[in-house]
Amino acid sequence: MKASQSFLATLKEAPSDAEVVSHKLMVRAGLIRKLSAGVYNYLPLGLKVIRKVENIIREEMNRAGAIELLMPMIQPAELWQETGRWEKMGPELLRIKDRHDRDFLIQPTSEEVVTDLARNEIKSYKQLPVNFYQIQTKFRDERRPRFGIMRGREFSMKDAYSFDRDTEGLKKSYQIMFDAYTRIFKRMGLQFRAVTADNGAIGGSGSQEFHVIADTGEDAIVYCPDSDYAANLEAAESLALIASRAAASVAMAKVPTPDKTNCADVAKFLNIPIESTVKSLLFVADQENGPAKLFMLLVRGDHELNEVKASKIPGMAESRFASEAEIKLACNAPAGYLGPVGVSADATVVADRTVANMADFVCGANDAGHHLTGVNWGRDLPEPLVLDIRNAVVGDPSPDGKGVVDICRGIEVGHVFQLGTRYSEAMGCTYLDQQGKAQPMVMGCYGIGVTRLLGAAIEQGHDEKGIIWPISMAPCEVVICPMGYEKSEAVKAACDQLHDGLLAAGVDVILDDRNERPGAMFADWGLIGAPFRVVIGDRGLVDSQVEFKGRTDAESQNIPLTQIKEKVIAAIQTTKQSIV
Amino acid sequence: MKASQSFLATLKEAPSDAEVVSHKLMVRAGLIRKLSAGVYNYLPLGLKVIRKVENIIREEMNRAGAIELLMPMIQPAELWQETGRWEKMGPELLRIKDRHDRDFLIQPTSEEVVTDLARNEIKSYKQLPVNFYQIQTKFRDERRPRFGIMRGREFSMKDAYSFDRDTEGLKKSYQIMFDAYTRIFKRMGLQFRAVTADNGAIGGSGSQEFHVIADTGEDAIVYCPDSDYAANLEAAESLALIASRAAASVAMAKVPTPDKTNCADVAKFLNIPIESTVKSLLFVADQENGPAKLFMLLVRGDHELNEVKASKIPGMAESRFASEAEIKLACNAPAGYLGPVGVSADATVVADRTVANMADFVCGANDAGHHLTGVNWGRDLPEPLVLDIRNAVVGDPSPDGKGVVDICRGIEVGHVFQLGTRYSEAMGCTYLDQQGKAQPMVMGCYGIGVTRLLGAAIEQGHDEKGIIWPISMAPCEVVICPMGYEKSEAVKAACDQLHDGLLAAGVDVILDDRNERPGAMFADWGLIGAPFRVVIGDRGLVDSQVEFKGRTDAESQNIPLTQIKEKVIAAIQTTKQSIV
Repeated sequence: MKASQSFLATLKEAPSDAEVVSHKLMVRAGLIRKLSAGVYNYLPLGLKVIRKVENIIREEMNRAGAIELLMPMIQPAELWQETGRWEKMGPELLRIKDRHDRDFLIQPTSEEVVTDLARNEIKSYKQLPVNFYQIQTKFRDERRPRFGIMRGREFSMKDAYSFDRDTEGLKKSYQIMFDAYTRIFKRMGLQFRAVTADNGAIGGSGSQEFHVIADTGEDAIVYCPDSDYAANLEAAESLALIASRAAASVAMAKVPTPDKTNCADVAKFLNIPIESTVKSLLFVADQENGPAKLFMLLVRGDHELNEVKASKIPGMAESRFASEAEIKLACNAPAGYLGPVGVSADATVVADRTVANMADFVCGANDAGHHLTGVNWGRDLPEPLVLDIRNAVVGDPSPDGKGVVDICRGIEVGHVFQLGTRYSEAMGCTYLDQQGKAQPMVMGCYGIGVTRLLGAAIEQGHDEKGIIWPISMAPCEVVICPMGYEKSEAVKAACDQLHDGLLAAGVDVILDDRNERPGAMFADWGLIGAPFRVVIGDRGLVDSQVEFKGRTDAESQNIPLTQIKEKVIAAIQTTKQSIV
Repeated sequence: MKASQSFLATLKEAPSDAEVVSHKLMVRAGLIRKLSAGVYNYLPLGLKVIRKVENIIREEMNRAGAIELLMPMIQPAELWQETGRWEKMGPELLRIKDRHDRDFLIQPTSEEVVTDLARNEIKSYKQLPVNFYQIQTKFRDERRPRFGIMRGREFSMKDAYSFDRDTEGLKKSYQIMFDAYTRIFKRMGLQFRAVTADNGAIGGSGSQEFHVIADTGEDAIVYCPDSDYAANLEAAESLALIASRAAASVAMAKVPTPDKTNCADVAKFLNIPIESTVKSLLFVADQENGPAKLFMLLVRGDHELNEVKASKIPGMAESRFASEAEIKLACNAPAGYLGPVGVSADATVVADRTVANMADFVCGANDAGHHLTGVNWGRDLPEPLVLDIRNAVVGDPSPDGKGVVDICRGIEVGHVFQLGTRYSEAMGCTYLDQQGKAQPMVMGCYGIGVTRLLGAAIEQGHDEKGIIWPISMAPCEVVICPMGYEKSEAVKAACDQLHDGLLAAGVDVILDDRNERPGAMFADWGLIGAPFRVVIGDRGLVDSQVEFKGRTDAESQNIPLTQIKEKVIAAIQTTKQSIV
């Protein structure tokens, strides 16, 4: 391919709204252009990367026995009303009306449509299992689209949906998808990790996320370097850091702690380790009928509450932080001096596993400017409800018992999910089993963010010059840079011959025929991230030599012109083999 | 590929809302399923045909030097307000609001977005010409979606946009696209014709449509069997059928014609040929300021008014038929007895070219129950405005003077269009010419209805059994039908070996491993339209014989098992070569 046919559109400056490196580089390298907030044009080189990603996904999905089809972008509200998602989903679901004032939506995902298809087309257990997938444009009306295409509004997703006879079948289908995802991200040459995920609002019984590891990732991942354990911070289990509770050794006492409203300040003021303090957080769950419910949540002074875990405390699904007035009413003290001793009897006290095993601890006294010391469960206050409600921290024991955890950051690019019968029961998606009895199909769903993968790969691979693509995703495998394509017959002939030879050998090659100055040309291809570069000029051709350089090589090598084609092919093959 | 991996979903009955054969067959063959009016799921076999169509289009567009990119489905209103189309377009433009109440639309086409891209990215004459294209989902909120995917609401279109320095450049770009389209439809194996089109509401200076010829087509195409002439009936020029006007030979007379309100009845009643009568139609063009304008349009009694041509009469762009009251006021007679003699002086009388050369003609007398005979221009009424305003009819002289025209029906599948500077001027899409002066880019646009092509191909190719695909579009090239795949080891082995061998040779083969009864299996593949079928059963294998049959062959042939692979490959190749 010629560069003149690729519409190169590199920029010196990144747009002012680009917060992350992948967004900056995608615009600067001419892969994307913003049309409106979270909505992008894909320029030719960007589209080429998308097609490579799609092809890898398609090949592995087909190999896993999944069947590709295509469901509409515009879907009728009726189906989404059957599952209740029409009402339940927030404004990120873009609802529209057609000319006849009928309700439609733009698909953010396709559970309803595929379940409708399955209930119409699948009658018998003989037709199961089946796994349908599509690669199709989605739209989610994000409140604050950002990070370029990583949190855009219009994006491309591969979504797959498995239908099984029973839970055992689902587990098999799920494992097949898990394995396919592993192959997909491996073939893309990405450093990634499968992590246990929170099930979130989709519901269902088990799920894992695939994260591309990158310092700039939105998600924190808790993992064990000595084992396979990995979980999203939202979902990572935290064990008690104290194996069992010691006996009380001191009496409880109220001490003045003027203006010390957080555990760090209290510990410093009292000259005790922060690990002896307890943080108290008051939540309110409003009730439709009757008075609101109060919850006091306790984590150790140096720990943080995990809001996803907290939302799963019975009764707390829809809770909120208590207001100043509510705090005053329940504790008779301002925020900063709350504690479980003497809190209103209406409040449910929930202690994190670690807090539950603490003795002689320090907490707020429910009295402005005072804390209690030497507090002990059972003696000074009733035993609490004990639950895992804190965020994991570096050095925590791994939940699988195989060492201690570390935390890294990741970008979610895939999600596999055991849905169960949530959609099939709501929509009457049943099959006749061997006894002729109608049974709900057992479903799984499996997503990959196609366009997001471009951003994630760049967050993982870049340097000061620009993008460092894995070769399987790069917009080209090698670029030929002529020194004077128009000026020198010899250079033009050598470049054209190499270009045609590589093309014939199945190499994805671009010949830069733009007649740019060498500096600008090299900068462009560093920015775009061509994995290999060949420079051909009159000076080298005197000795029949050309320059060859890998994207991250410090120096280029001189290669005889007669060997350069084989050299390029070998280098690409070696790089590809190192991936898979 | 195995049939069990293709999700075959054939049906005995067509849906009740299917009016045309392609819609019926696409549903019955399991290519599509309706989700809502004009919105369809593409099942695996349907998607496969789409991909084949897309690939042919993509290859030929790339070969023609066009550059693929991808523009968003959801586009901001602002750009469409710049060109005025936000206001001008009717309710077929689906307008939506996002969560922040900002106006967006779902693209029915992408002139605005691509022009915005060009004005941002293209600065210099050195970057021109360029031709951008995309293959992308479109949405048009048709008032009455019908004919399955042929007039659906959500559909896939290839849209290309060329940008040139000047009109001369545009003409070259246009011709390149015209040639590419010709190759595309040839490679698809379709019978088609390029026809002169009306420019319609897009504006611009010249356009042609590509029609697939089919009796069930929505459009009438006027063509000359003896030359290249072809035009959409809307745009086909009609010459005068009378070379010059004869002298008046009789006096004008008013004759009673009771209850004879159309030309056919009048001619019969007066015992004269219908070719001596003139039909008068009264139109009103309302004016924003001042009284409405009246137009009386005259065509020969056996001719029909061409409304597209009529809308181009100066002042008639927004006209309508006159009401009974307006007719009464202008002509003092009810509809059926109107005529140009004595019509209100406010009315502009427009005669079709043929009518203008008639002498001694018969028309309404502007008196209920009466017509005038022996009417002559100049003597009995003033000379009219003479224009081509009628529909062409079979036997008319061809406008290119090379014979007479015939009329066939066609389905529009492509459109090439010289837009000129309409969009670039409205949006300030300019480039700097060699003198450093800003000039508007000169644009062309070029569409192909990707999904509609499936319907058009089926309208052209089908029989009582089902679809007859051109081989380049078929969901498979050959199907292997085993007689007892599960029951006979020998059959299974022979089928698997042939399947694998054909696959390795690059043949698009499906092995029907569903264990259906032979009758049902053959019916399915006739319906789906596999171009070739191989039947392998124990009976034939006794003599190492298998059955081979083309989709439209009356009889199958017996072929030695050892030769069947080469036979299939040769048959496919011969068929493909007969196309291109």
